[in-house]
Amino acid sequence: MGRPSVKTQLVDRTFTVFLSQGYEGASVNDLVAAAGVPKGSFYNHFPSKEALAIEHVRRYIAALELDALADDPAPPLTALRTHFERRIADRAATGLENGCLLGNFSTGVPNGCVDLRTEVQLGFSLWEHSIAEVLRRAQAQHQLVAGASPADLAAFVIGSFEGAIALSKVTRRVDHVADFMKTIFDLLLPRLTMLGKDGS
Amino acid sequence: MGRPSVKTQLVDRTFTVFLSQGYEGASVNDLVAAAGVPKGSFYNHFPSKEALAIEHVRRYIAALELDALADDPAPPLTALRTHFERRIADRAATGLENGCLLGNFSTGVPNGCVDLRTEVQLGFSLWEHSIAEVLRRAQAQHQLVAGASPADLAAFVIGSFEGAIALSKVTRRVDHVADFMKTIFDLLLPRLTMLGKDGS
Repeated sequence: MGRPSVKTQLVDRTFTVFLSQGYEGASVNDLVAAAGVPKGSFYNHFPSKEALAIEHVRRYIAALELDALADDPAPPLTALRTHFERRIADRAATGLENGCLLGNFSTGVPNGCVDLRTEVQLGFSLWEHSIAEVLRRAQAQHQLVAGASPADLAAFVIGSFEGAIALSKVTRRVDHVADFMKTIFDLLLPRLTMLGKDGS
Repeated sequence: MGRPSVKTQLVDRTFTVFLSQGYEGASVNDLVAAAGVPKGSFYNHFPSKEALAIEHVRRYIAALELDALADDPAPPLTALRTHFERRIADRAATGLENGCLLGNFSTGVPNGCVDLRTEVQLGFSLWEHSIAEVLRRAQAQHQLVAGASPADLAAFVIGSFEGAIALSKVTRRVDHVADFMKTIFDLLLPRLTMLGKDGS
């Protein structure tokens, strides 16, 4: 294999800089230093820091493995549990204290960075859509009461996950993600299963 | 009344700067400009930007009205609902797109700002403790099954609230906080009430 291109190096080696320092806290100087490339070459590949951050958001969305979630042959709620176990393992791999790129960017990107914010929003929409689909399958298989709204529940689950990650980031305790898994999968969803088909 | 002191002016007029620009995005220049005070006077009152941010976190914790929650004579789960309705009204007043100071700081303060991060963590701990107390009262009054852990549920509810606020911040839709209220108060907590006293 040949040497990785400067562009690849810039993307591969700057993910943790954005994660640990935040969008505003990561300067182009920090990014080129982490990538080991001259500062001048940055602008040959990316018109701005925002453009590089957008590239990271796209990679991050791909790494959510939404296709694997859609294709998982397991019962829907089991597939969803596996999906979040994997996301937690991903976050643990880059350090729970570094949080989630989408979550960090949702609070940390200035309002003026419209393109980046739109990309983050797109990531959440795709994720929400994928989870809502799984919840719809769960309803079709009577794993979930018909009265619950898959779209609302999907957004709630993602919000709760992001909140748990944000709390873990500040408290440096993993309890919050364990608590998220337990509350969603052992308390909330089973109780939305036990009810009658009227969904009340 | 006399003129507000420079220190008061610095605190009163910089809250929205931290909220809308984030900790890293708010420079001392931005802060003194918003406060309408000369830059030199900043350091007469605060040793650093971090010290001013800590002052804001303390005010923010006071504004959570945790005493009002503890003293609310309403049934515990009604008191908790009122508490979150007020927090949402507070967030709406400063713009939902600006998020929550504790939430923004939990993801946006560099790991090196140990004192500020500790203050944010303290805020979450106090909040969690107050909500856990209300949930314990709910258990004592059989509004909540004995098997649910008040501390874990309290942390989950706060995480879900912060996540919903973060999603609202990026999507610019209020749906997420409405969804949070509905899922916690109309789906999750009532179902933890309906069960038998064994908590299963």
